[in-house]
Amino acid sequence: MGIKITATGHYLPPQVVSNDDLAKFLDTSDEWIKKRTGISQRHISAGENTSDLAAKAAENILRKRGISGEEIDFIILATMTPDASSPSTACIVQEKIGATKAFCFDINAACSGFVFALSTACHFMRSGMYKKGLVLGAETMSKVINWEDRSTAVLFGDGAGGLLLEESDVDSFVAEDLHSDGSRFMALTADEKKVQNPFLSNEQNEDKQYLKMDGRGIFDFVIRSVPKTINQSIENGGLEKDDISWVVAHQANIRLLEAISKKVKIPLSKFATNIESTGNTSAASIPVLLSHMVDSKQIDIGSGEKLLFTGFGGGLTWGSIIITI
Amino acid sequence: MGIKITATGHYLPPQVVSNDDLAKFLDTSDEWIKKRTGISQRHISAGENTSDLAAKAAENILRKRGISGEEIDFIILATMTPDASSPSTACIVQEKIGATKAFCFDINAACSGFVFALSTACHFMRSGMYKKGLVLGAETMSKVINWEDRSTAVLFGDGAGGLLLEESDVDSFVAEDLHSDGSRFMALTADEKKVQNPFLSNEQNEDKQYLKMDGRGIFDFVIRSVPKTINQSIENGGLEKDDISWVVAHQANIRLLEAISKKVKIPLSKFATNIESTGNTSAASIPVLLSHMVDSKQIDIGSGEKLLFTGFGGGLTWGSIIITI
Repeated sequence: MGIKITATGHYLPPQVVSNDDLAKFLDTSDEWIKKRTGISQRHISAGENTSDLAAKAAENILRKRGISGEEIDFIILATMTPDASSPSTACIVQEKIGATKAFCFDINAACSGFVFALSTACHFMRSGMYKKGLVLGAETMSKVINWEDRSTAVLFGDGAGGLLLEESDVDSFVAEDLHSDGSRFMALTADEKKVQNPFLSNEQNEDKQYLKMDGRGIFDFVIRSVPKTINQSIENGGLEKDDISWVVAHQANIRLLEAISKKVKIPLSKFATNIESTGNTSAASIPVLLSHMVDSKQIDIGSGEKLLFTGFGGGLTWGSIIITI
Repeated sequence: MGIKITATGHYLPPQVVSNDDLAKFLDTSDEWIKKRTGISQRHISAGENTSDLAAKAAENILRKRGISGEEIDFIILATMTPDASSPSTACIVQEKIGATKAFCFDINAACSGFVFALSTACHFMRSGMYKKGLVLGAETMSKVINWEDRSTAVLFGDGAGGLLLEESDVDSFVAEDLHSDGSRFMALTADEKKVQNPFLSNEQNEDKQYLKMDGRGIFDFVIRSVPKTINQSIENGGLEKDDISWVVAHQANIRLLEAISKKVKIPLSKFATNIESTGNTSAASIPVLLSHMVDSKQIDIGSGEKLLFTGFGGGLTWGSIIITI
């Protein structure tokens, strides 16, 4: 059984925080941030949690497709900033959109979460057992940011996006290539939870709640690994680079996208980007970007163009999926 | 492409906490706990985190199968008590067992997590794209327990278990039936994380870190929903109840298993149990139980018996998978 993408959608919290807003309390500047990251502003939640953003993105998808939540067979939601550890954020979204028959769970692969969730959803759908599946990526990164750390606080934003997969006679799934390297997990950590109970044999270190990133380590990892997974997914699909219409890459930093483009020898014009207005929204970045591209008619659903989704981030995790849209 | 289970394994932290140990600081008793839950003791981590337990369970699986971590294509780990939100616990396990080529991510569907992860792994494997996948369930519930709340502190334990799926010409996957109901999410909550950042429009409530459970609500939900998913999965597989050799159910409470058995009209003797010695280990309970059953020769891998895995818990989430072992 095949799958196709039939709708996209997104939601960004309305509050926009500019680089100048950050410079009011951080030793940074609009010029510095723009030059090093390509980011001018980010959307920051004024109180909405991850499930609120995700439910609004899901409603946007359902509205565009003209169906109700009751038709959805499953909701797979990628996040590293869930509302809670129980219930899953996917279950809260289920309630908010009335997806009464859906089964729901969260996936965590940090910034690569959406690519891993999309792969998971494709495998569920291709079993032929389900007709309509929602794949969401949603984050309120603002709750794990150390707002006194100028090296990370300027990078991230909040948001949610997603897409609807439906069964199809023709299979739009082309290829995938997924990886992890836990030996370098220290390069990006967030929300650590040590064991705490009355039966400990020794004192535990304090939890480190806030996101910590080795920027140089992440940069090196991305430059080394992401071009490889792009090439491998193209090879797995029996394609040539020219067959790819768009690389829909995780929006971490415009300088990273430039370096990847150069190394993989796919022109930068094929790397879609919206980081200037959103910052790095972790697992939400790829589906928000895709939705922006569809809304702005940069791509048309049903056009038959081949999209290469590529994600990378904490874990470390990285990977690519090629889907014909 | 088909799948088969080729090895099982588990790890319980060595520290055993008896009901009498709990009665030293909680207004409870061995008699009260045993009568209402069937639990005599639980294993509680003396400092080992979820990834430590999971890695030891994974090593146990690899040792029994006689292979190294390098042969593993993916690690899917179900937990509601991860070490961190980045890296995923699966990535830390990857490093500890040297599964260098694996891709890794965490799944959260609370106590149903293992059933959802097993389903996910089956769908990945049945694509024919992967040869060996590790499915793990691991929890240190002791870090989200309110040890002053006698209604929940007596119920839970720590542990990890899992199984190895391998490609096979004959497909051992028979059927699945997965559900969620986010409208009843308040029945079991843990580790809530409100939005906190410098740009909030109003004061947020304080995070509720500890697990809170509406015991009566959960009991009613389980009695209503779990017999239905057991029946539905048997129907989906074109089977009769007599075809099921064992119901490997989430170990939440022996009284629940008795009530499910009665309502679904499958004899209690077919409901495996180890809750007396482990307590409720959430997403770890089913794979720890399965591993106990294999180690004690209650079931043999390769026997061709049909196992019905059924999980239920926070979200709410519930579901069943039937696999021939």
